[in-house]
Parts: sequence; structure tokens; C-alpha cells
Amino acid sequence: MSIFRFFTRTPSAPAARERLQVLLAHERTNGDESDLVTALRDEIMAVIAKHMQIDREKVSVKMERGAQVSTLAVDIEIPFDGKKRAA
Amino acid sequence: MSIFRFFTRTPSAPAARERLQVLLAHERTNGDESDLVTALRDEIMAVIAKHMQIDREKVSVKMERGAQVSTLAVDIEIPFDGKKRAA
Repeated sequence: MSIFRFFTRTPSAPAARERLQVLLAHERTNGDESDLVTALRDEIMAVIAKHMQIDREKVSVKMERGAQVSTLAVDIEIPFDGKKRAA
Repeated sequence: MSIFRFFTRTPSAPAARERLQVLLAHERTNGDESDLVTALRDEIMAVIAKHMQIDREKVSVKMERGAQVSTLAVDIEIPFDGKKRAA
């Protein structure tokens, strides 16, 4: 499954940056489609944006929908000058 | 690493429930401690609570802090009658 590739991939060359990764996995016992993961994606991104400036070009979003499991993987590269102080 | 155990563990016996898993991984290039993951935990839980009723007894939260990476794993069991309609 690609979620394992996502978290086990070899790090890129060292660089002066931080990364924040978010993974959601929604497992359903019935086969109904669900927009829960889709809905959470934008709201969680908004939560993150309250803590730091997010460069849209530095954000990778991968979503996979299966019959039983939907997964969302968000990978955010954080510039050092993009940090805000949390209130 | 335990985050892999978390996502690869054998499912429990089939039951009439759904699960939502959230994983955060914050990778720092300097060694400074960060409360980013801690801050995001409560705010993301609040986002999820807008979409469903969360039974605190059905929520597992595991946090690990390392020198370079902090991880947070949240595992939520969703009762079928706990769903709300997203606005």
C-alpha cells in the first residue's frame, strides 16, 4: 500500500527545512462511500495554516479511495521563516 | 518504529464499527523541541468532533518524541449511530 511507501521512503538530501506529515485512514465496515476524509482534509489544512505559513507549492496531497479504506497523505515542507508562534 | 506497527497491525475481529486513524509526523532538521504536534493534536480532535460524536473511551492516542521526529497516532472507533451529517 502506498501509505507505507509514503512513510518509509528514503529521505531526500539534507536541507534546511522541516516537514510535517499528516496521514488519515478511514476504515469502513460497510461499503458505503464516505466524504469524511475529504471533509477532514480541508479543515485540517486550515488548522495547520493557523500555526505556520504554508506554501502551496510545498504541499503534497495524495488521496486513495478503496472499497473499505480511504487514505489521505499530506506532506508539508515548512520554511524556517514560515513559523508562527502559537497563541 | 511504532508508527509502522500502528498501521500494519492485524485487524481485530470483525465488528460493526468504523475506524478513523490520524497520524502526524513532524521531522525537524534542528534539534529543538517543538510543541507543534501537541498543539495540532487537540485542534484536529476538535475538527473531527464536528463531524461525529467521539466517545473518549474509544479513542487511543499515542505520542512519541524523538530528537528529530515527533509522531502522534490517534485511533478513533466510530459508533454507527455517532455520525453527524457534515454541513
